[in-house]
Amino acid sequence: MNTNATDPSLVAWLSDNRDRFEQEMADLLRIPSISTESEYTESVAECAEKVAADLRAIGIAEVEVVATDGNPIVVAQHIVDPSSPTLLIYGHYDVQPVDPVELWDSPPFEPTRRDGRMYARGAIDDKGQVHMHIKALEARLATGLGLPVNVKLVIEGEEEVGSTNLEAFLAANAERLACDAVVVSDTGMLGKGVPSIATGLRGLAYMEVHVQGPAGDLHSGGFGGAVVNPANALAEIIAGLKDGDGRVTIPGFYDRVRDISDADRLNMEQLPYSDEAFRAETGAPELGGEAGFTTLERLGFRPTCDVNGMLSGFTGEGAKTVLPAKAMAKISMRLVPDQDPDEIARLFTEHVLQSAPAGVTVEVRPHHGGWPWAANPSDPVFDAASDALQAAFGSEPVYFREGGSIPIIPLFEQTFGAPVLLLGFGLPGSNLHAPNEWIDLDTYHQGIETIARFYDAVAERMG
Amino acid sequence: MNTNATDPSLVAWLSDNRDRFEQEMADLLRIPSISTESEYTESVAECAEKVAADLRAIGIAEVEVVATDGNPIVVAQHIVDPSSPTLLIYGHYDVQPVDPVELWDSPPFEPTRRDGRMYARGAIDDKGQVHMHIKALEARLATGLGLPVNVKLVIEGEEEVGSTNLEAFLAANAERLACDAVVVSDTGMLGKGVPSIATGLRGLAYMEVHVQGPAGDLHSGGFGGAVVNPANALAEIIAGLKDGDGRVTIPGFYDRVRDISDADRLNMEQLPYSDEAFRAETGAPELGGEAGFTTLERLGFRPTCDVNGMLSGFTGEGAKTVLPAKAMAKISMRLVPDQDPDEIARLFTEHVLQSAPAGVTVEVRPHHGGWPWAANPSDPVFDAASDALQAAFGSEPVYFREGGSIPIIPLFEQTFGAPVLLLGFGLPGSNLHAPNEWIDLDTYHQGIETIARFYDAVAERMG
Repeated sequence: MNTNATDPSLVAWLSDNRDRFEQEMADLLRIPSISTESEYTESVAECAEKVAADLRAIGIAEVEVVATDGNPIVVAQHIVDPSSPTLLIYGHYDVQPVDPVELWDSPPFEPTRRDGRMYARGAIDDKGQVHMHIKALEARLATGLGLPVNVKLVIEGEEEVGSTNLEAFLAANAERLACDAVVVSDTGMLGKGVPSIATGLRGLAYMEVHVQGPAGDLHSGGFGGAVVNPANALAEIIAGLKDGDGRVTIPGFYDRVRDISDADRLNMEQLPYSDEAFRAETGAPELGGEAGFTTLERLGFRPTCDVNGMLSGFTGEGAKTVLPAKAMAKISMRLVPDQDPDEIARLFTEHVLQSAPAGVTVEVRPHHGGWPWAANPSDPVFDAASDALQAAFGSEPVYFREGGSIPIIPLFEQTFGAPVLLLGFGLPGSNLHAPNEWIDLDTYHQGIETIARFYDAVAERMG
Repeated sequence: MNTNATDPSLVAWLSDNRDRFEQEMADLLRIPSISTESEYTESVAECAEKVAADLRAIGIAEVEVVATDGNPIVVAQHIVDPSSPTLLIYGHYDVQPVDPVELWDSPPFEPTRRDGRMYARGAIDDKGQVHMHIKALEARLATGLGLPVNVKLVIEGEEEVGSTNLEAFLAANAERLACDAVVVSDTGMLGKGVPSIATGLRGLAYMEVHVQGPAGDLHSGGFGGAVVNPANALAEIIAGLKDGDGRVTIPGFYDRVRDISDADRLNMEQLPYSDEAFRAETGAPELGGEAGFTTLERLGFRPTCDVNGMLSGFTGEGAKTVLPAKAMAKISMRLVPDQDPDEIARLFTEHVLQSAPAGVTVEVRPHHGGWPWAANPSDPVFDAASDALQAAFGSEPVYFREGGSIPIIPLFEQTFGAPVLLLGFGLPGSNLHAPNEWIDLDTYHQGIETIARFYDAVAERMG
């Protein structure tokens, strides 16, 4: 294989441009492109324009910011030879909210270098990884190496709110975006220096449960004991979602869950992983979960039911003796193949409504959902990724199941009839969706090198 | 009895001064004397000075604002004859917080007359009722009728935060405040035009439960299923506090609860009360509570365990897939004779710590507590109150158990060896501790007349 043929000039050029790359990534991270909160709509649009401008600046032939009913999608392509393999790069420039903002050691939108990391909201999920693709393309074009494959990019702004407008966009542009493989860098690695390819993703069903008791808040003395308390009722409903073994009690919940294969178990045994290191990373006093499964099984192969948020009554300083009128919880379920998010949302709703105690009114509102996914790692794009990772990191990649969700992955497979490669560079503890999100800068540069080499490997393996 | 002897001049004078009284009550209600939130400390002090000024203005002989380690206590006395009976009037000028402030139809500290009511925080709990005592005293002094008994007043500013400094103050001033009966107007009536005397109060144990899972918020995909979720754990803890019959499961919780006597049941049957009217007042779809008890029994004779507030994770707009680091609930128990609040707080703490699942750290923090109380209605002060209520309202008072708590009532009994009379004028639905608190203005004026007549009745019954 010729993956190393381009080394000298590429590696030297990448090395010479490290500081500039980091500064430019910081410029992208500075934009508060929070898609879940409507007051940031302008910043989201500004971020789309910034991504497009960055792509134009490095010489990508066609770049367009496409308006949708929601946030714009950045679409670009660089066609070198219609008979060469075509990669479609997908990423997202929108980010999660920053609450609780007081727990950030540096402001979420003032990217800060500390201890070999850059801290900012979106550093790893996903603006930092989108930026790695832009810099890898720049490296090929700026050094004169050029691209041995065609590259198309779709960078959206609604991933954190369920990619609302992406499906219609992909369907309407299926021909223009036709490709031989889809590459997504929005996942993680098992450890620093451990190149990793994710072969599975969990799906998602995200629900809100609203419990209404009395019409307004009541005095807990004058009414307590004779009026059903919606917060107590909500606690009962939530507690009733799992049994003593940590198994979800919703009827039918596990019906479509695949058994874990012997090959999967064997692969998991060989992964560089320790429960104690994982526990230490979380800071939890001990790990826990569904009885009868290991941590890696719980994360990769088993569905969950987690409260994401819960609110009722008086939560300020001091003691207020109120019997609250209402209580609310956000509850989401991570799903595994072959669970169907719409079916799970329906089963959840039916179960919660049936288990609601008398004396309160319960409403269940679904948020966006997403399908679980498992890869076929025998596709040649996986070999190409393996070649590039080995060349950049110096060791063979490991294959693992990601616990998180990227709901649109199955959509790409269906739309383009092409395999999806999850080539992610986030390290454990990156705090995505949490305060103090960071990207490891060594890994960031190795990732850029990986992607810059990957084009050659694709040309060789898939050409 | 001569309770009616003073009628003509008193009733006419009261009638002539109705508008002025209401305006002066509004002046008192305008001060945001919230004792549970430290930013209102200055307003609390201002309110104490206002109460003292109002007492001086009507000619009360000795008025003092006594500093404490917390909020000041207004102390006053008007001694007419050391050999006459002495009443000690207790009330509080501090109020509850106003959250959720957006649910108020008029601002909580801009007293507003609507539909024969005055709406404001503290209108009925307890500044409005304190004001009734001041106006009743004014009526006696301004008309030249004078007082046939000695009157002392203790109006504190920490009732809503557990009367932290009152006990030490009473102990240190037991001789100066010596009395034959204590009168407290901080309770309610069973209905408009139904004069009522509360013969029981529930006690209180108020706890905060803090559950810590991981050190910081985690991504619910990358960690969900393998890390115990503190919000789910808190829901389990709360749900585990009661069984399917609504009975509290804390071992020993009911050990000291008195059985309901036949006399109490007979009295309850005769009260002007309907479940449907009570339910309609709450706006709840139906009533509910501990199996095997009526609503009045649940309110007056049975303890409770209610969530007052609950908070975890992301509670804003949209969907954030976070596995929260911590979860918190405020949980209070209303207690009945002879439950001991300190013992209940200890039993609660032990039970919660024992029922906490592995994988999280649970901390239980007690807030202030209070003893339950039951009166001995054969004391002559009850006859005096009955005389005055009948004269002012035109019907005999009913006796009932109040579901709320006034933790310092037992303290007054112990300190002064004197009976406590709960002479309250709040109507059902007054929204105390809730948005849109109000006082009924007809009842307000009848209450002033009741108190102004009560002095004569006390002189006759206890003199």
